[in-house]
Amino acid sequence: MTDAPQPVADPARSADRVDLRFEPSGRQVRVPTGVTLFDAASWNGIAIDSTCGGHGTCKKCKVKILDGAAPASSLDTRAFGATELRDGWRLACRLEAAGDLRVEVPPLVTRPKAATVGVGRKVILRPAVQKRYVKLDEPTLQDQTSDLERLLASLDDLELRVDLHALRTIGPALRQGGYRATAVVVDDVLVDVEPGDTTGCLYGIAFDLGTTTVVATLLDLSSGTPVAVRSVLNKQQHFGADVISRISAIMLDPEALGKLSSLAHETLAELTAAVCSEGEVTPREVYEIAVAGNATMTHIALAIDPEALGMAPFVLASRWFPELLASELGVAVHPRARAVVFPAIGAYVGGDITSGLLASGMDRDRRTRLFVDIGTNCEIVLGSGERLLATAAPAGPAFEGASIRCGMRASDGAIESVEMSPEDLAVKVIGDGEPLGLCGSGLVDSVAELVAVGLLDPSGRFVADDRAAEVAPGLADRLRTVAGERVFVLHWLGEPGDAERAIYLTQRDVRELQFAKAAIATGWSLLLEDAGITADDVQQVLLAGSFGSYLSPASAVRIGLVPPLPVLRIVSAGNVAGEGAKMALMSVRERAGAMALLEEVRYVELSDRSDFNDRFVDELAFPA
Amino acid sequence: MTDAPQPVADPARSADRVDLRFEPSGRQVRVPTGVTLFDAASWNGIAIDSTCGGHGTCKKCKVKILDGAAPASSLDTRAFGATELRDGWRLACRLEAAGDLRVEVPPLVTRPKAATVGVGRKVILRPAVQKRYVKLDEPTLQDQTSDLERLLASLDDLELRVDLHALRTIGPALRQGGYRATAVVVDDVLVDVEPGDTTGCLYGIAFDLGTTTVVATLLDLSSGTPVAVRSVLNKQQHFGADVISRISAIMLDPEALGKLSSLAHETLAELTAAVCSEGEVTPREVYEIAVAGNATMTHIALAIDPEALGMAPFVLASRWFPELLASELGVAVHPRARAVVFPAIGAYVGGDITSGLLASGMDRDRRTRLFVDIGTNCEIVLGSGERLLATAAPAGPAFEGASIRCGMRASDGAIESVEMSPEDLAVKVIGDGEPLGLCGSGLVDSVAELVAVGLLDPSGRFVADDRAAEVAPGLADRLRTVAGERVFVLHWLGEPGDAERAIYLTQRDVRELQFAKAAIATGWSLLLEDAGITADDVQQVLLAGSFGSYLSPASAVRIGLVPPLPVLRIVSAGNVAGEGAKMALMSVRERAGAMALLEEVRYVELSDRSDFNDRFVDELAFPA
Repeated sequence: MTDAPQPVADPARSADRVDLRFEPSGRQVRVPTGVTLFDAASWNGIAIDSTCGGHGTCKKCKVKILDGAAPASSLDTRAFGATELRDGWRLACRLEAAGDLRVEVPPLVTRPKAATVGVGRKVILRPAVQKRYVKLDEPTLQDQTSDLERLLASLDDLELRVDLHALRTIGPALRQGGYRATAVVVDDVLVDVEPGDTTGCLYGIAFDLGTTTVVATLLDLSSGTPVAVRSVLNKQQHFGADVISRISAIMLDPEALGKLSSLAHETLAELTAAVCSEGEVTPREVYEIAVAGNATMTHIALAIDPEALGMAPFVLASRWFPELLASELGVAVHPRARAVVFPAIGAYVGGDITSGLLASGMDRDRRTRLFVDIGTNCEIVLGSGERLLATAAPAGPAFEGASIRCGMRASDGAIESVEMSPEDLAVKVIGDGEPLGLCGSGLVDSVAELVAVGLLDPSGRFVADDRAAEVAPGLADRLRTVAGERVFVLHWLGEPGDAERAIYLTQRDVRELQFAKAAIATGWSLLLEDAGITADDVQQVLLAGSFGSYLSPASAVRIGLVPPLPVLRIVSAGNVAGEGAKMALMSVRERAGAMALLEEVRYVELSDRSDFNDRFVDELAFPA
Repeated sequence: MTDAPQPVADPARSADRVDLRFEPSGRQVRVPTGVTLFDAASWNGIAIDSTCGGHGTCKKCKVKILDGAAPASSLDTRAFGATELRDGWRLACRLEAAGDLRVEVPPLVTRPKAATVGVGRKVILRPAVQKRYVKLDEPTLQDQTSDLERLLASLDDLELRVDLHALRTIGPALRQGGYRATAVVVDDVLVDVEPGDTTGCLYGIAFDLGTTTVVATLLDLSSGTPVAVRSVLNKQQHFGADVISRISAIMLDPEALGKLSSLAHETLAELTAAVCSEGEVTPREVYEIAVAGNATMTHIALAIDPEALGMAPFVLASRWFPELLASELGVAVHPRARAVVFPAIGAYVGGDITSGLLASGMDRDRRTRLFVDIGTNCEIVLGSGERLLATAAPAGPAFEGASIRCGMRASDGAIESVEMSPEDLAVKVIGDGEPLGLCGSGLVDSVAELVAVGLLDPSGRFVADDRAAEVAPGLADRLRTVAGERVFVLHWLGEPGDAERAIYLTQRDVRELQFAKAAIATGWSLLLEDAGITADDVQQVLLAGSFGSYLSPASAVRIGLVPPLPVLRIVSAGNVAGEGAKMALMSVRERAGAMALLEEVRYVELSDRSDFNDRFVDELAFPA
């Protein structure tokens, strides 16, 4: 199992470890001393009964200590009789492991479910949203207890705040349901009371709020199952493709923040309607949403001026966000549905990365791993056992095809991969039709293959024609000159030899890619240096985001975009931002893990490093 | 001092008392054991320094114990050095008085102000709203701390929740103010950040939300001074004069709740605009409002269906209300201003009474006192040292002149007082013009005087003409018959003797008043019985509300509306509901006192009492 348990919030403790063996499964786990049995079990996907989530109020997490020292807490003496205590019964959430233990876990009464999400992360279902069906006594002249106090008395294992909305619905709900009703609780807030038993209807929506694309997943929170997934382009597109152009628009026009915020809301609202319709779920049954987005996207969506993100010293309004309502993001689900917005690590390492780190277990893995999310802004996180270092590198738009002569987005007609031998080349086109251009992964492949066959020298310059004929006789005549610039033709659109009508890679395109990969390589190499390790120590590279899924690991290594690892250890992690958002909806514990990441990750600012420029120039060349 | 300190929430402790002497003032107070020095001082208007309100976080409430045992708490050992501890220095908020103490209170550094409100209540100013002016370091590339975390670090004596609104204003405020800004905190929520130093601008509005009249007082919360007061008629009037007709309207028309709620909001909004304009205060500088109203008015204002209040078993949606925003009551002040809505004791003993009890110190007075708020619904509270009993009596509309033949509201032209001798009578008219009718206080006076001169017998019947000529020769010819009913003419509008054109009191009017006063007298006599005391034990009667201000104590005694006390001990308490609302704005401690009242007051339901009807019939007669 790769995601070995680590304490979420207290790395200081991790020096000493203890072994815990859970019976009857026989599962053995190694955890830092001081961790509660409940947490240790939870992190390892071992289900222990609980309705309060480990807060010592429900007294359901009873376990029996078979071997090892387990002093009884003051709660234990209230939860158990003398015989039970002597037999070793303890509340798992109160018992901090001080030494090795063997523990018997009774069969579950309230059955928590577990689901696998992200990069092999097993999450035990414990959503912030819960529904409780209650049967109450009807009031009489002898018992005029108010509706709310009557209900709260039946939920006395919870300490609840109350939303005005619940006060508006409680009376009609109790009367309509004959004093049988369902309390809807989000975190510690009673948000609604519904007549009858509605405990089966419990949904959430996880949003990956990207600068370009926004993805929504409707989750059934009673099972953790995705019910529907949809994606759309972010409606803010016409204010610019990247975050900087959107921040600029806001700096220039006092009304732009309001407009961009509304467009974000419209995007989220459209997706909400789409997934609810596809999943045949009433929007009112969606009680919570989670949003993972970069800092600029989340600031704008919440109508917080992102201006300070766009200029040095690059300051966030806040790394974390307070308790929010879905309606504050324009999402029309339950009127008092909550919104969890992922906290940001820095101005350019945003909530999408926090979410991605959570989903890929970067905080729970002892291996030295590099998390790289490639885009216009490239976020890089280095995890090495005890610590996490993060930075952002300005890669520019090359990977999105924007500054590339024949570049295009990764859509139908784009050359997405290229293979070359000295004799010939083969391209793969999205949609299998006639090539229309070159997308990011095709660009990386092209350059990597040209370096491999020797048509590009390590400095990134096309070799002279005679040298080309020598090293790659079958490709040499694809080296042409267009408008005074050396180019390499990937595909003839007209007559072979008619370079004007062809898809080609220019010398300038190669330079663009060099700048982009140098920025990224400088980022991770400086992080490695700060951590006191070298590229050889890296055991895994996680390529996050959609671009990461298409990139050829071999090409990435060849151009020096990532450290030189065996390709099998360069893993495409997929849409980890969206996965993390799902995890936050499924488990309050995982959500707390996202907040804990803020304390565990150190942000490294590159823009004021005196060694950045020298290192960048060094990294422009391709590995020999 | 009449309002001797009593513990707010723990009557169980009150058996043992200790004496505390505060130096240099020499003030001596007697409090239950276990009360902290800070609370004891606060309840007695003795100011001790504090910015956290007695929560052990600001460490400003330093006092020196001169005599008596005072063990040091764990906080003391952190707040003081060894020498100081030996010299007797302690934090007043941590020291629970276990025995008699003599305590030196140092001069104030942060000066809390005190104001006298309500019935002789001295309130130390400690509003929930506070402003903090801060000077922050500007961020740099070496210190990219987010705006919020930078601000919170400078407010580390507070544990704050954060409102999204504050996240929207913080960046612009810090940049505009050169990192000098004012944090606006309500309770434990950071609601706004304003550029520069705005600590001087801090206001609240106290509302007395009556069924008929609504009064607003704009308070300067930095000094506790009222800045402006205005009153208007509740715009809900045309849905009926009393709460029952408004509830009925809501039961009949599904849209009525929304309409009535909007009308309440309009009423409050109009008053808000008026007091802000009169006080020359920007509405945005009003950060909190407090609302005291009966249960029906507060339910409707918050758009909570009041239907269950109108039918047995008379159930509230809730006795208390959650954290609310002023905007949820339609009050356009600061967008995130909070609203404190007074909790209700029962369906017919509402937040206005809770507020009135607070303002009249009913919970802090050892004397046996009767609090009576006369209206269509009459609320009665009996306080006798350790306990408070409350009930409601349906007095009907007689006191508002509504069911009285020549009745009218207490406005220009109403006969408000009547004096009679056997020879003559004199009336006093509001506005001193020609009488137009008879208001409640005039009605009570008329009947009381008619009983006194012998024209009404103790059963409430007009005496025969011959008997009239005997007992009151100067008044006998005012006894006439109109439309077959015996009447007593108070004022001839036309020719003397033309009873058709006169203002008179009918036999039926007398009956109406008898029903009303019998309902009230039954209420307090049953409370006295429940408390095991008699009317002779009552030491003071507080007449609350505007009707109470006009009522003649002598007449009230004579008709048996209140127990037979010397008139000087029947005190008009004025608009105590409004006063309590002001207290809630001025002091979080007083506000907590209002919540504590819910635990201290026992509500006595009369409608299912088997002894109610017999007692009611007994009380119809006038005292001999």
